[in-house]
Amino acid sequence: MKILVLAGDGVGPEVTGQAVRVLQWFAQNRNLDLRLTERDFGMTNWQKHGTLMPDETWEQIQAADAILFGATGSLDQAAVIPPEERRKGSLLRMRKGLDVFANMRPVKMQPALAEGSPYKPRVTEGVDLIFVRELTAGMYFGTPRGVETLPDGTRRGVNTHTYTEAEIRRAVRFAFELARSRRNHVTSVDKANVMEAGALWREIAGAIHKEEFPDVGFEHMLADNCAIQLARNPTRFDVLVTDNLFGDLLSDAAGAIIGSLGMLPSASLSAPDAQGRRRALYEPIHGSAPDIAGKGIANPLGSILSVAMMLRWSANRPEDAALLEKAVEGALAKGARTADIASPGEAVVSTSGMGDAVIAALENA
Amino acid sequence: MKILVLAGDGVGPEVTGQAVRVLQWFAQNRNLDLRLTERDFGMTNWQKHGTLMPDETWEQIQAADAILFGATGSLDQAAVIPPEERRKGSLLRMRKGLDVFANMRPVKMQPALAEGSPYKPRVTEGVDLIFVRELTAGMYFGTPRGVETLPDGTRRGVNTHTYTEAEIRRAVRFAFELARSRRNHVTSVDKANVMEAGALWREIAGAIHKEEFPDVGFEHMLADNCAIQLARNPTRFDVLVTDNLFGDLLSDAAGAIIGSLGMLPSASLSAPDAQGRRRALYEPIHGSAPDIAGKGIANPLGSILSVAMMLRWSANRPEDAALLEKAVEGALAKGARTADIASPGEAVVSTSGMGDAVIAALENA
Ligand SMILES: CC(C)[C@H](C(=O)O)[C@@H](O)C(=O)O
Ligand SMILES: CC(C)[C@H](C(=O)O)[C@@H](O)C(=O)O
Repeated sequence: MKILVLAGDGVGPEVTGQAVRVLQWFAQNRNLDLRLTERDFGMTNWQKHGTLMPDETWEQIQAADAILFGATGSLDQAAVIPPEERRKGSLLRMRKGLDVFANMRPVKMQPALAEGSPYKPRVTEGVDLIFVRELTAGMYFGTPRGVETLPDGTRRGVNTHTYTEAEIRRAVRFAFELARSRRNHVTSVDKANVMEAGALWREIAGAIHKEEFPDVGFEHMLADNCAIQLARNPTRFDVLVTDNLFGDLLSDAAGAIIGSLGMLPSASLSAPDAQGRRRALYEPIHGSAPDIAGKGIANPLGSILSVAMMLRWSANRPEDAALLEKAVEGALAKGARTADIASPGEAVVSTSGMGDAVIAALENA
Repeated sequence: MKILVLAGDGVGPEVTGQAVRVLQWFAQNRNLDLRLTERDFGMTNWQKHGTLMPDETWEQIQAADAILFGATGSLDQAAVIPPEERRKGSLLRMRKGLDVFANMRPVKMQPALAEGSPYKPRVTEGVDLIFVRELTAGMYFGTPRGVETLPDGTRRGVNTHTYTEAEIRRAVRFAFELARSRRNHVTSVDKANVMEAGALWREIAGAIHKEEFPDVGFEHMLADNCAIQLARNPTRFDVLVTDNLFGDLLSDAAGAIIGSLGMLPSASLSAPDAQGRRRALYEPIHGSAPDIAGKGIANPLGSILSVAMMLRWSANRPEDAALLEKAVEGALAKGARTADIASPGEAVVSTSGMGDAVIAALENA
């Protein structure tokens, strides 16, 4: 397996370092055939090469079986970089360039973390849901876009949200297939009462359910209602499928159930090629967190759990994925806590300390 | 004060009925000069007149000093109505037609409701925030919009999100002015890292802060981060200002803090005319709730608290508004609970029983 590691900015290198340790553990102990390449991404490239995306990096992105991504620089830092250069070197270009349309964002409550959650235990107990966020269309990529000058000299900002039938279909189908391997239920989220593109989404999701997946439980839900239901009754959800922008907001809202974004992984997959292989991008949900970068205190579990998703989806090793997920649970159950998930008074481990705890749990499994 | 009552569909008539009782109490006991007109809205018009919006109703909407709105029919019911007719008779047309761009959605925690909230008391205690949601532009009204057929015969859904400088400015200014009468802090929410229209929003909000309201505390926040902060730390917010679509989702997410949408009011205001008068639309946040309509169990407090906002913003009677808000708190403190806010085992009052409890609290004040 050719894995490209793009640790990126901020806390990216720290957390990715621990994820790579875990990958190497699987290479040494479980015969995972690993070819790791590491490359700079983001601000580091800008500082070293004056471009956010050297051609060689872009070629390696295209050629990798899987990418392990860390984090990308904050908006403020990015202000010094010309917009065109910013687009060329952006996470969004990578997502689009790889055509990884199916962004999976699981949110699974760990009993050990109930204390840190803002929600009551009666709400969080047993939460185990996953978003399939469409990642390569919608508001993020629609044209026309930009700021135009009106006849009276004032300006107007414009963004365009578009979805073709094909774009909706592949995301919704992915969600239904995923549901069959889980608890067999899909919630399709849109704003069909206001947006025509949402009404088309609803029509197509409904038709795919009826024609191809009648055995899977299914419901439509309006996006604003979904925001409420995620807070009131998140255990009712299994798989949620929605567009790029709603997926961004709602999956973060769902992530808040856990108490810290630092825990949350993601995987983004393309359609399979002729050999059945999907291009794949794995990244923790959290950002570059410049305020805590370099201090060795960031939570590496989002990145480590992204490795578990990589084992499942790119290496086709579901047992290893489960082993790693169990090891993370084990480390938490034994009390390992980075600062973001510690309760007042609890002892705290460093980024590498959490890596140690996971590796120890793997050794003891 | 010329008030037009549009009770609408579902639970609209029940809850609005109690709000009207409260208005009449103020007419009888506090010299509120009231001219009430009631008109059908929504499905009832469709059934009686074959149109969702008789011309006469539209004229009365335009002429009213304030509108007290109930709820409008669900998506399913609306499926029988032709799209053009639906647009003509829609809540969105009313908002746009009245140009009520400033939609205020307060979320204030009542200690009596801590038990029913999905959040822990440490999160909800002291929550007192208000959204200013821009209500007449953005994704809801942008063109081009619709479903188009592509050259290959498949379809594509399109919606357009636009904001002019003027549209951003008036919403942001409204938020800053509101903050001065509260805790003096504004959070402006956008997705400037992805949307050009969001970057324009950010630029203008920042400039208005600097040039016109340097005394008010201010921050920018990305919409996905806002979804998280509303769950983790809602007491950090005072006034939030954002666009139409983000406002829809995020204000509902914030509403979930209270445990029931049934509690939540809203007010939507236009710019003042030459006489300083604003057109105004008052409506509870909850929808028509067809599943419980006609049973006399819906919570009227969202509508009653909308009357309090009417007393403050349209009648210029801040003391009466405060009196009514206190009466609602009093009724809750005395234990009045409709089903949506009752804890298991608690005695439940009907819609009119809650109205009784509020009137009793007013009498005793
Ligand atoms: C960094 C940003 C562009 C990105 C997004 O909006 O998709 C992030 O919020 C995410 O969810 O991965
Ligand atoms: C009913 C619907 C059109 C409306 C909206 O999306 O604005 C509602 O959700 C609201 O928030 O008032």
